[in-house]
Amino acid sequence: MSVGLKYPQSLIKIKGIRLSASSAKIYRKKRDDIALIEITDGSVTSAAFTQNRFCAAPVQISKNHLSKSKPRYCLINAGNANAGTGEDGLSNSKAICRELAKITNCNENEILPFSTGVIGEDLPVEKINKALPQLVKNLSEDCWVNVAKSIMTTDTIPKAVSSQISIANSTVSVTGIAKGSGMIKPDMATMLSFVATDANITKDALDKIRDHALIKSFNRITIDGDTSTNDSFLLISTCAIDAPIIDKKDSKEFKILENEIIKVCRELAQAIVRDGEGATKFLSIQVDEGIDSSECLSVAYKVAESLLVKTAFTASDPNWGRIIAAIGNSNIRDLDIHKIDVYIDNICIVNNGERSKTYSEDKGMKVMRQNEIILRINLRRGTFSEEIWTTDLSYEYIKINAEYRS
Amino acid sequence: MSVGLKYPQSLIKIKGIRLSASSAKIYRKKRDDIALIEITDGSVTSAAFTQNRFCAAPVQISKNHLSKSKPRYCLINAGNANAGTGEDGLSNSKAICRELAKITNCNENEILPFSTGVIGEDLPVEKINKALPQLVKNLSEDCWVNVAKSIMTTDTIPKAVSSQISIANSTVSVTGIAKGSGMIKPDMATMLSFVATDANITKDALDKIRDHALIKSFNRITIDGDTSTNDSFLLISTCAIDAPIIDKKDSKEFKILENEIIKVCRELAQAIVRDGEGATKFLSIQVDEGIDSSECLSVAYKVAESLLVKTAFTASDPNWGRIIAAIGNSNIRDLDIHKIDVYIDNICIVNNGERSKTYSEDKGMKVMRQNEIILRINLRRGTFSEEIWTTDLSYEYIKINAEYRS
Repeated sequence: MSVGLKYPQSLIKIKGIRLSASSAKIYRKKRDDIALIEITDGSVTSAAFTQNRFCAAPVQISKNHLSKSKPRYCLINAGNANAGTGEDGLSNSKAICRELAKITNCNENEILPFSTGVIGEDLPVEKINKALPQLVKNLSEDCWVNVAKSIMTTDTIPKAVSSQISIANSTVSVTGIAKGSGMIKPDMATMLSFVATDANITKDALDKIRDHALIKSFNRITIDGDTSTNDSFLLISTCAIDAPIIDKKDSKEFKILENEIIKVCRELAQAIVRDGEGATKFLSIQVDEGIDSSECLSVAYKVAESLLVKTAFTASDPNWGRIIAAIGNSNIRDLDIHKIDVYIDNICIVNNGERSKTYSEDKGMKVMRQNEIILRINLRRGTFSEEIWTTDLSYEYIKINAEYRS
Repeated sequence: MSVGLKYPQSLIKIKGIRLSASSAKIYRKKRDDIALIEITDGSVTSAAFTQNRFCAAPVQISKNHLSKSKPRYCLINAGNANAGTGEDGLSNSKAICRELAKITNCNENEILPFSTGVIGEDLPVEKINKALPQLVKNLSEDCWVNVAKSIMTTDTIPKAVSSQISIANSTVSVTGIAKGSGMIKPDMATMLSFVATDANITKDALDKIRDHALIKSFNRITIDGDTSTNDSFLLISTCAIDAPIIDKKDSKEFKILENEIIKVCRELAQAIVRDGEGATKFLSIQVDEGIDSSECLSVAYKVAESLLVKTAFTASDPNWGRIIAAIGNSNIRDLDIHKIDVYIDNICIVNNGERSKTYSEDKGMKVMRQNEIILRINLRRGTFSEEIWTTDLSYEYIKINAEYRS
């Protein structure tokens, strides 16, 4: 079950990127569980990894390889996270990189491994190595959706987005895929995302776009507050189109490309939330007029991660008391509750910290029944705004929580 | 359902405390929902209230009254939190205090109101005022259990504890009650607790005990990370026994009394966790050898509030990957994961950041099947320790989360 997601149709190829997916039989049931992304020579890439101190072996190896070489291949497997596996885990990740390097005739430092799946089990190196020749052989520009599908774990639908724009009279394409994490995805909370463009851009400028894109997309989603050991994001520019290089971070061309990449990343990030396990609602939490971004985010996350707020949304119960309690619980210094307004879509439920005079339970019920809801909190003390996305908390879990109102 | 809790039998009376419980018909179904605690003249009291910025009207009134007078009565109602009710809420709380003051012939500043129940609905002042004469008439020293029962909301069992010790050849009694909050208790997450002793003690010394007791009990429990708008704790000493006054905070008598009050508070706090909605397990999370208390608590709360860890406990699944992922996610600076050991009871599951060589899935499953489990995390980098208590997350919620392991 997912909220407002469609199966991705054909995606725009990115010149300089070839991909393939196959089965290494990591899963017991038959499915593709291994994927390869080939990045043409002359590309620039920009990566970001999990902040979890217990980061998985492939994350450690990828960071190390990125520090030594420009990447040529991303080797991704589902079904096994290769996390919490110590020295053996590092050797295993290295072993599959080495094998792929041999087949593709490149240096193992040019290979980035990514894994997602169960924590604490040994990576099935032999199975993966056995599947590599076919994987390399099948590389094609037109395999984005299959790869998006092969890296799924508890995802119910592949997540892929394409977009095209014109920059200085050249057509620039952006295509991206993502997997994860949904609500409470036990061992599989990993988010992986690979976004590629054929734009001609410097590494410095691409890094800047990566930073901006992350804070406008993947770093603005929350399901259960847990951060996986394997989260990885890779932004690739193949520089394959014939156009002047984008190097200035304040140029018009930079801004256009940045906006387009942010758009794709945001759609992918929202798709992860929309596919949250058991999600019945897609919630945008907006916090306006804070003193700084940090306090806007504190309030937004406190509300988004409050199980009481989440369960109220599942039950379509306009239980605004839970929302103000979560706001009050967000540790904002000198917060004047008498200034706070709260809106669900266009319905004002709380005005100056109290139930709005114009609010009625009927209005609240009606707006809460929607699948997609914007919850807007106005702190009325500054000029900053932030927006994050989350889901509700559904199923029988709700039976004991959301139906209760004495 | 609760874990290891018994219905409280008769409690030790505290000389100088009289109590009563009655029905003001706040709830639709017939039950006691209003209670009164009378505190004899000459007592000393020490209070603590919720840190939530949206604190309820009765919390605001109680704080105000405490700043003006010594309290003589606690007037408690269940079924309505009188929170998020603005100016009307304050007037309503004042109105019931005024009425009680009239009947008991005291000043309204000597009355502390406490409310627990639905947020955002008007306090039924008339119903409460109508019930007051009978409530006052029924006051007796022997009504502790009835009061504990009358203040319950979604609690499944009253929570009450008594204890007696000898201090300097005098028998000192401590009796306490509590309600709340359990796991995900929608509008009713409030924790209320009233603990009384007949010890002869100064206000300063009692305040010190209150602070110590809180950090050893009620401030060391977590269910869902939400803090209610109404949480209140009142520690009363009636000074009714004939014994030298305890005023020195390093005296032997102070220490004995403090330990006993901490013991009672801890048992009450743990009872709240044990009665967590849907709780099937009572979990003690111990973090040892941290650099300071703060980092021990950060790790402990991150693990205790991780939905992934909670659901693993419900499923009796020794899924240690989730535990290390939560530890890694606790934002401890320079945490060396290669030093970390994790034990479930006496079973070492993680040694030096990896799965212990002595660990087997069988051993893990066996120890996870218990109802009461100690999870011990050793950071091996300092001398501080902390312990907190929490529950698992059960029911169908688990179906999609805990049974999943590809």
